[in-house]
Amino acid sequence: MLQARRIKHCRRCGTPVEYRIPGDDNRERAVCGGCGEVHYENPLNVVGTVPAWGEQVLLCRRNIEPRFGLWTLPAGFMELGETVAAGAVRETEEESGAKVELLGLFTMLNVVRVGQVHLFYRARMLDTSLDPGPETIEARLFHEHEVPWDEIAFRTVRVTLRHYFDCRRGGHFPLHCGDIE
Amino acid sequence: MLQARRIKHCRRCGTPVEYRIPGDDNRERAVCGGCGEVHYENPLNVVGTVPAWGEQVLLCRRNIEPRFGLWTLPAGFMELGETVAAGAVRETEEESGAKVELLGLFTMLNVVRVGQVHLFYRARMLDTSLDPGPETIEARLFHEHEVPWDEIAFRTVRVTLRHYFDCRRGGHFPLHCGDIE
Repeated sequence: MLQARRIKHCRRCGTPVEYRIPGDDNRERAVCGGCGEVHYENPLNVVGTVPAWGEQVLLCRRNIEPRFGLWTLPAGFMELGETVAAGAVRETEEESGAKVELLGLFTMLNVVRVGQVHLFYRARMLDTSLDPGPETIEARLFHEHEVPWDEIAFRTVRVTLRHYFDCRRGGHFPLHCGDIE
Repeated sequence: MLQARRIKHCRRCGTPVEYRIPGDDNRERAVCGGCGEVHYENPLNVVGTVPAWGEQVLLCRRNIEPRFGLWTLPAGFMELGETVAAGAVRETEEESGAKVELLGLFTMLNVVRVGQVHLFYRARMLDTSLDPGPETIEARLFHEHEVPWDEIAFRTVRVTLRHYFDCRRGGHFPLHCGDIE
């Protein structure tokens, strides 16, 4: 969800903000009417993995909104204090319990409409033990022909999975950058 | 600069926040004592380019803090409403006036200490016309032996430039991911 226009009060002093272009800027920001604090709103990174075990990939069935009950690759918002890679590993473990080794950045997909950049690493599962967290109904391995394409939660996940299976046939995995309308 | 711990008031209702772990979460967030709004703070993307004209690269001398007077590749915070690539082109134009064509994502560097991910594209300058904006004292082209290595503003810029010149000798430009301590 776009976070723009959600700021009503100054985070520093609590005074109502107004949206205007600050003197040294060229776009509207939420500016505090009291202390003058300028509040910037910027895109967020969603980081995750394509966990593979041999020919299979790991998907998680979402236990939370949005897209409750649909299947996703493990992914979530990158947090302060971690790298993109560390966030991808953390989300994988939180959502599925899978232990993985990262192989390389595989997709970087802009979702401008919601102010997000989705970054997926390829990952090798170290074993098949799973322990889904509270955000996941179930986690399981899928062969390509088993993937529930009509029940994938997000377009970035579908695009990443398509590229993954295509690249695997070719045997190499360049970075794919793209935009989701 | 890390943005954590800077939220004192709720952006929705202005009530003071407290830092605690919400019931459905596993890390501290700024939670409103009034309306219950949870405020997330996440890393930001800094996006830019390595603009090249033949053997030369374009650097900009900073007219703003931090690192006033030092040299940088054109880059800045990614904004809502744009892709990583569009942000990189925009920053290049704003800071130097250079018109560029993007070639490929070249570096993704985590700067965990300040909660940032720096993403640089390689870019080809379409001509040598420059028109630096207010954030830039001067913009000019440098051959490798002319680069002012001791006056580079940011480590991500230095790392990106080093990789760039190294790769150019080898003739190919894979993505470099890395972490800046």
